[in-house]
Amino acid sequence: MMQGYFLAGLHAQPATFDLYYRRNPYRGGYAVWAGLEVALDYLEGLRFTAADLDYLAGLGQFRSEFLEALRDWRFSCAVTAFPEGRVVFPNEPLLTVQGPLWEAQLVETALLNVLNFQTLVATKAARCLTAAQRSPYGGAVVEFGARRAQGPDGALGAARAAVVGGATGTSNVEAARRYGLKAVGTHAHAWVESFPTELDAFRAYARMYPENTTLLLDTFDTLDSGLPNAVTVARELREAGHELRGVRLDSGDLAYLSARVRSRLDEAGFPEVKITASNDLSESVIESVIREGGRIDVYGVGTQLATGGGDGGGALGGVYKLVALDGADKMKLTGDPGKTSVPGLKRVWRGVDAAGHLALDVVASDSEAVPQPGERVSDPGNPLRSSRVPAGLTWSDARVRVMEAGRRLTAPEPLPDLQARARADLDRLPEGTLRLLNPHVYRVSLSRPLQERRDALIAALREQHGL
Amino acid sequence: MMQGYFLAGLHAQPATFDLYYRRNPYRGGYAVWAGLEVALDYLEGLRFTAADLDYLAGLGQFRSEFLEALRDWRFSCAVTAFPEGRVVFPNEPLLTVQGPLWEAQLVETALLNVLNFQTLVATKAARCLTAAQRSPYGGAVVEFGARRAQGPDGALGAARAAVVGGATGTSNVEAARRYGLKAVGTHAHAWVESFPTELDAFRAYARMYPENTTLLLDTFDTLDSGLPNAVTVARELREAGHELRGVRLDSGDLAYLSARVRSRLDEAGFPEVKITASNDLSESVIESVIREGGRIDVYGVGTQLATGGGDGGGALGGVYKLVALDGADKMKLTGDPGKTSVPGLKRVWRGVDAAGHLALDVVASDSEAVPQPGERVSDPGNPLRSSRVPAGLTWSDARVRVMEAGRRLTAPEPLPDLQARARADLDRLPEGTLRLLNPHVYRVSLSRPLQERRDALIAALREQHGL
Repeated sequence: MMQGYFLAGLHAQPATFDLYYRRNPYRGGYAVWAGLEVALDYLEGLRFTAADLDYLAGLGQFRSEFLEALRDWRFSCAVTAFPEGRVVFPNEPLLTVQGPLWEAQLVETALLNVLNFQTLVATKAARCLTAAQRSPYGGAVVEFGARRAQGPDGALGAARAAVVGGATGTSNVEAARRYGLKAVGTHAHAWVESFPTELDAFRAYARMYPENTTLLLDTFDTLDSGLPNAVTVARELREAGHELRGVRLDSGDLAYLSARVRSRLDEAGFPEVKITASNDLSESVIESVIREGGRIDVYGVGTQLATGGGDGGGALGGVYKLVALDGADKMKLTGDPGKTSVPGLKRVWRGVDAAGHLALDVVASDSEAVPQPGERVSDPGNPLRSSRVPAGLTWSDARVRVMEAGRRLTAPEPLPDLQARARADLDRLPEGTLRLLNPHVYRVSLSRPLQERRDALIAALREQHGL
Repeated sequence: MMQGYFLAGLHAQPATFDLYYRRNPYRGGYAVWAGLEVALDYLEGLRFTAADLDYLAGLGQFRSEFLEALRDWRFSCAVTAFPEGRVVFPNEPLLTVQGPLWEAQLVETALLNVLNFQTLVATKAARCLTAAQRSPYGGAVVEFGARRAQGPDGALGAARAAVVGGATGTSNVEAARRYGLKAVGTHAHAWVESFPTELDAFRAYARMYPENTTLLLDTFDTLDSGLPNAVTVARELREAGHELRGVRLDSGDLAYLSARVRSRLDEAGFPEVKITASNDLSESVIESVIREGGRIDVYGVGTQLATGGGDGGGALGGVYKLVALDGADKMKLTGDPGKTSVPGLKRVWRGVDAAGHLALDVVASDSEAVPQPGERVSDPGNPLRSSRVPAGLTWSDARVRVMEAGRRLTAPEPLPDLQARARADLDRLPEGTLRLLNPHVYRVSLSRPLQERRDALIAALREQHGL
């Protein structure tokens, strides 16, 4: 397509593309927007190397004048986006690319690849943390999924996105290194099996890592072997002036076992020893463990966090659509009304109520002023569902210009800032929106002028194509 | 753990680890073993760079003598595995690593990461192709999922694995380049929207790529706009001495639309124009489209193929377990009998019947001879389920030594050979094993001596740990 635009002389026309998704992942009430910094890195670094051009030339499908034009090419578009970490919703433009048609088109797949995946995993992490924090004793989430992630790079990306969504560490040392995360972990079953007895194995580990020992209890039997041996080692560590850091459960009934382990550790004088659990965890497993009286401090979430798996998960269906070209509105109709795009350059107004809660997002044309109380706005997927803008909201333009002429406008934001932003946004969601199942549906609406603009374009396209 | 083994003086002990999975993905009857060549590349190239060692030193958890020992370290283990592309089943050791304990332990996460994911995607591709080929008119599968894959590298790995499982191309140009695959694709909706009319857009595309034009029909309306315009362009191409390659459907009722498009193209004299379809395809959607009379030639499977998503998918739960150390059998018990491992170095005997169909896999101790008719063998997960080895089977050792002292024993196998191996294996599965839902369960059994060996070790471990 890039060559096609070039040969048709359309490549330099100013285009606008919107990136958005249509349904919240996991049948939930929101998504945590993640991957923006990774995407901007990609855009800044994008170029065609001599080796790339040689490969393309060898395919026999590309003209030399086109390949020549790619030689010194750099990405030169402007990008406007929600800041990374923000809580976002379906059918609002999360990221908008403005610039020459061929460039804005080229980056579609890469942007979707990075942003779909990172947003999916950050959302999963936020959901797991929401579940964990419902325990009266609190709870943290760490990312344990490298072995089930989709390729080495999938594991790295998942670890990063999990932190944006609220995870406090990763078992992936390379991810910890690359992103400045906290590397967490302990020994595996093989460690225990490599010593004559479980107690020998625990003692050896505690001797080597006296300040950072977490013992895996279930190699032979959690309550009858692992737990008493861990208590023995905890006492020996204390005599030597150290404290056992934690124990880990990796099989069996986690609610029952963690409650038993907690009470035994408490009785033995070790209330500070943390209990970590793993074994196919998800937000719903975490919720159920807590409901059943489990006493887990740290949830090591693996497969479902590293792959964004689970109910309705596995992929965020983000799309990237042309909405304007050379000053004219653009859209596709298709046979599926849910896939009809919203034309034109847009702005997202986010309204916050007096209590500081998110109340309403209004997608408007770029030139429109801030929404006024009483204005009628409508559901992007169904114009029949409309409502009036409530009074008393404070409005802000939800997106910022992050790139101009292919260059970042500000330094990359550190991961802890992104995590803090997500945390703050999650804390100010309306009641019920955080609910894991059947949540309150947060309202994203189209402004009346934008709705009318879309209707007019639909009518014109139908007329033009004789439909 | 690696440092722990080193400091405990256990690191050089000869260890054996098995990699296997416990349940077929997608509730299916088999998996297509993929990723071996990628894993072997990784193992051969594995080392700690000076920068790696600096990072580790900076963590303050590692002793200098340990880091020094890593400086010139190379992987030195032996690896035995099923050849890539083979059809495999739960609870048989797919890959076995033998060598110094610390090395064999180190590679756990990386091996699982690569092999779990590639096997998952190859299996998905095989299932989609199985569904596609049930059409009386045949059907092919191509990989279209880069935008929904889990990171850029996830997209590359998925494209490769999809080809092992039977896909004939990918829309990912970088994957095509790296793995020598066929790059396939066409224009997007934005192409159509960039021209004054759909017909202008189709004509421009056909003029640029007269030998390779596939037209996307659904930007405005598939049957009332896209299809008549495509027929016009097909006629114009023919007058100019070319033939339209294909059309693509990307929304709506694919069964109905493809049947209508097929009959219109046939009537117009274009029976050779191929119909490609995309839009959230999976093996079950493909099956349903064919059942309803759809006439699709090429299925562009995106999200579900690139992520291995769908029912029970998203991740293959492969594990990597210590089974022997310094000449002694090893296993873990855990609270979950399904997670109990099978000790010792093993061999997998694959029995083929007179018709050439796979009939029975027997997991035996390495030293055992070929299974004899009438021998009793048992289910690895439940010793109560046992049966006798049938007569008339031809047995072969299913795995080969692929690496010795950390070096490959043969050159990497080309992808077309792996695809052909998978194809041949799928064709010789017993009836019902290919069924997408509720398949025939192929039998993997433990030999009687191996079963007794496991029972003895369980008894000894229970005794030793007072259980």
